[in-house]
Amino acid sequence: MSDGAARRGRRPGAPDTRAAILAAARERFAVAGFPATSVRAIATDAGVDPALVHHYFGTKRDLFMAALEVPVDPREVLTPVIAAGPDSAGEGIVRAMLSVWDDPDRRLPLVAMVRNLLDPSAPNLFQESFLQVVIGPVLVDLGIDDVARRLPFVASQLVGLIVLRYVLAVEPMASLPAEEVVATVGPTVQRYLTGPLPS
Amino acid sequence: MSDGAARRGRRPGAPDTRAAILAAARERFAVAGFPATSVRAIATDAGVDPALVHHYFGTKRDLFMAALEVPVDPREVLTPVIAAGPDSAGEGIVRAMLSVWDDPDRRLPLVAMVRNLLDPSAPNLFQESFLQVVIGPVLVDLGIDDVARRLPFVASQLVGLIVLRYVLAVEPMASLPAEEVVATVGPTVQRYLTGPLPS
Repeated sequence: MSDGAARRGRRPGAPDTRAAILAAARERFAVAGFPATSVRAIATDAGVDPALVHHYFGTKRDLFMAALEVPVDPREVLTPVIAAGPDSAGEGIVRAMLSVWDDPDRRLPLVAMVRNLLDPSAPNLFQESFLQVVIGPVLVDLGIDDVARRLPFVASQLVGLIVLRYVLAVEPMASLPAEEVVATVGPTVQRYLTGPLPS
Repeated sequence: MSDGAARRGRRPGAPDTRAAILAAARERFAVAGFPATSVRAIATDAGVDPALVHHYFGTKRDLFMAALEVPVDPREVLTPVIAAGPDSAGEGIVRAMLSVWDDPDRRLPLVAMVRNLLDPSAPNLFQESFLQVVIGPVLVDLGIDDVARRLPFVASQLVGLIVLRYVLAVEPMASLPAEEVVATVGPTVQRYLTGPLPS
């Protein structure tokens, strides 16, 4: 939609308006988290009409993905994993994640997103927003039980893997073939998804 | 030793000298990593005699721990885990780590250390220094084979756990009893330490 608007010739002030909306959204999501943030409040902060926010960015979730600079929607990438069901989801999730991250063209935007999300001064971004809005629904769609309890363990392994392999590029992790990482880390994610939890 | 020096009355310029040495050490370790950094080079950068560096900080490893603000030496905390041997090391390492991190008095300095170590603009600090100097020797002492390959996987799980439970304090992970985390994450670390690796 925004590409279409650009092709039709946007008025000169529009890029600033978009930037103001994104900055207001980032700030609101960081302070209050996704559930407690309204598009109306973001529009007020940015000094625009809420309809313009929807026109530029679509839904509140779309706006969140734009504000956090999420370059690839995990829910889309994981569609085949969800279709294959929970018993192969551990390896499936790791394989899908690596296929996105191993693409050099996507690396820099993804690292920028991680820095945004893991900013310790805005912990709501990760917990109340990214985990609950972007990742949690994938586990629900997979039919995983007790998602609230399992999700942080899944996230702990995937965040650590991203930090070691991509953000810090620790060797030999950074250069291992993807399938070796899948075979090593996949069973961990599988156990966190469907294994027994301690009582 | 530095406490003794303080009690005997350090000359007024000394705190600045210590700070200059620490700043030079941080910079050198960040740029070149631990192995390629010499105490002599740090002393030159700080404008002091190498003997003074040793007098204030002890060995190069001690200086590294001070420069990176490592408040607890993992090698000391893990002595009983090493004595118990590799077959219980997965749970042992996680339990020892949580016992240090769950202490509220140590939390802030530890988070500061993690920010230092995970600074993406200085990746050598984590790989060539913290992993190789501080954590790797623990696995060697445990008699783990193929440490270079296993260490990044162990680190990926532990770093992710620290980020989720302590740096971002994601719930319910942040409030789970330590033993539940040990029972859930311990088997992961155990498999990375002693389980089969994909060929």
